[in-house]
Amino acid sequence: MPTVNTTEAPQQTETIALTRGVPAPEVLPGVDIAACLAAALEDDPVGVLQYGHPSGYAPLRKLLAGLYGVEDGQIFVTNGSLQLMDLLAAHLVRPGDSVLVERPSYDRAIGAYKRRGARVVGIPLQPDGIDLDRLEAEVQRQVPAFLYLIPDFQNPAGITLSLEKRRRLLDLAARYGFWVVEDVPYRLLRYEGQPVPTLRELDHPGAARVLTMSSHSKLVAPALRVGHLVGPAALVAALARLGEDTYLSPVLPTQATIYEFLRQGRLEPNVEHLKATYAPRCRAMIEAVRRHLPGVPFAPPEGGFFLGLTLPPEANTDGLLERAAAAGLLLTDGRAFFAPADAPDGAGAGERFVRLPFCALTPQQIDEGVRRLAVAVS
Amino acid sequence: MPTVNTTEAPQQTETIALTRGVPAPEVLPGVDIAACLAAALEDDPVGVLQYGHPSGYAPLRKLLAGLYGVEDGQIFVTNGSLQLMDLLAAHLVRPGDSVLVERPSYDRAIGAYKRRGARVVGIPLQPDGIDLDRLEAEVQRQVPAFLYLIPDFQNPAGITLSLEKRRRLLDLAARYGFWVVEDVPYRLLRYEGQPVPTLRELDHPGAARVLTMSSHSKLVAPALRVGHLVGPAALVAALARLGEDTYLSPVLPTQATIYEFLRQGRLEPNVEHLKATYAPRCRAMIEAVRRHLPGVPFAPPEGGFFLGLTLPPEANTDGLLERAAAAGLLLTDGRAFFAPADAPDGAGAGERFVRLPFCALTPQQIDEGVRRLAVAVS
Repeated sequence: MPTVNTTEAPQQTETIALTRGVPAPEVLPGVDIAACLAAALEDDPVGVLQYGHPSGYAPLRKLLAGLYGVEDGQIFVTNGSLQLMDLLAAHLVRPGDSVLVERPSYDRAIGAYKRRGARVVGIPLQPDGIDLDRLEAEVQRQVPAFLYLIPDFQNPAGITLSLEKRRRLLDLAARYGFWVVEDVPYRLLRYEGQPVPTLRELDHPGAARVLTMSSHSKLVAPALRVGHLVGPAALVAALARLGEDTYLSPVLPTQATIYEFLRQGRLEPNVEHLKATYAPRCRAMIEAVRRHLPGVPFAPPEGGFFLGLTLPPEANTDGLLERAAAAGLLLTDGRAFFAPADAPDGAGAGERFVRLPFCALTPQQIDEGVRRLAVAVS
Repeated sequence: MPTVNTTEAPQQTETIALTRGVPAPEVLPGVDIAACLAAALEDDPVGVLQYGHPSGYAPLRKLLAGLYGVEDGQIFVTNGSLQLMDLLAAHLVRPGDSVLVERPSYDRAIGAYKRRGARVVGIPLQPDGIDLDRLEAEVQRQVPAFLYLIPDFQNPAGITLSLEKRRRLLDLAARYGFWVVEDVPYRLLRYEGQPVPTLRELDHPGAARVLTMSSHSKLVAPALRVGHLVGPAALVAALARLGEDTYLSPVLPTQATIYEFLRQGRLEPNVEHLKATYAPRCRAMIEAVRRHLPGVPFAPPEGGFFLGLTLPPEANTDGLLERAAAAGLLLTDGRAFFAPADAPDGAGAGERFVRLPFCALTPQQIDEGVRRLAVAVS
């Protein structure tokens, strides 16, 4: 394993990982989590430990329903967001169906939808979010099973969907009749600017087309694996049946831990602590890219985990991952984020796209990492 | 929800559930579990909370590997046994493949294998375990992707596979070349008699055909959802890749809890406590069946959670579930445990089979439940 030192200035020989979007280890709230599980076990030992409802831990569902202003039956909680995407696609995708995603999008989501038989199509992402003209053209060719997008601080590009585009997108969804799955795991981690309403908040009453999903991996701890979806009760019931067939009931002690974390009011101070930790790292990443890769355009992220950029055509990207690794810099292959394009437009398949996660690195490591990237592509 | 009172004598109006094999709520070790998670979080906060290895929590894998006498790479730990069956079938079953099970067998296992495309075939179960002549005849027709069986205190029949049949079964597996998946979640809960060696312990060195799977749902608590498999390292690696594609990484805090539970030596006293609680209930079930259903043959279970019986042809089983429910007795439909038969042999499709779980009921409730069953079928 490469050593990643998060407390001191990077040494020349230290490998720097700009690969996965992982939380900083020093902000994982182990003591709080132990206290929350202990409290849950004291209050509700049988509910936390016995076989449970396949829709998830009832008190957590009720609490989330209250936060979203929906019925308990509209909340599905499962073993993390990827499991949720897998079940959602298993339920919604029929043979021949397409699923639309932003281009680039979260690589594992693309894989999950493909494995459930979808033809996954990527719609170009612009600095203010998905290209709606291209989206409409694709929807006119074939109405998809659903559109999956990450409206806030997108993975991998760091982009936020503008308010105007959110409204137009919902008009399209209502007009053509397709589900919009908004995945908002980073939403609360805003370091700059003002929040834009969620698609759910903007959705047409009476013609609701939004399914909202999120997770506490980035807000509390990843290994708890607590992902949730808000949607119509019939859809939630169908997902629960699929979940029951697959894993009987979800893991409940970690759901009960999140329940206590929320109920005890620990989320807000934890998020404040995360923002205080991550905001300087986000700024450091923006500054490092401006310093070491001057002239390369990118949309400065206002929150989340990632800055994404597309290197200019003259950049040397041949064997980039291997050359970077040899120089002590680990990168993810940009092509993994690019689903097949909606149209031949010469944008490439992500060879020049680089995702730069910043949360688990110090500002010094970030600067050194981007410096090594600049050297590698020069 | 029907009220199930586990502390006092049953009232005439109390509904008695002889449906699922659930642990008694009063033996769920909530305090121990809170202590174990707290210890794990103190020792290894990042390992327990950060994204982890898709094969499971490394210290637990190492500990289990030591118990089984295998390499760490031969242990796969996932979110419960049913998830494990789902991934195993996804990996091993190819179009056209068969999977063989005992008839009757665990209903959810049958469903999981079917959903992954297997033609599931049931081989008759005898009082000393699966009918090996029928098994061999079926294997000669088509070598299956695997044979799944529950050798100890079988679900749903309570039967244990004899030593002689275990040896003959392994000879068959070696001769015809198929995997034998032994699922042993009840094995440590023996209330009478002497343990028979596992198939793994008896397997041919150099021609190993056994995959062993188990869980801590019945030994610690179900909602922890910690199931594991022991098999060749290449198979484990393939399951881990499928798991990573499906849920990224398994839920780790509950795996770490089981690790501490085992490491701190809490399992053995917990199992002793479970046996002390469950053994009288097992005896009560055997006695109740002899008392209220005299002449109905059954194999008295020596451990586990279930007694299974097949009612005589003259029993009134028309609309049994509904009539029993009206009389305050909840039963599971016996047909769910019967995969399509290997041959037309007139044994029926489980209409007359009844599974009687006894662990979560008092002796009084057990007696009253079987009395109601006897009335309903008379």
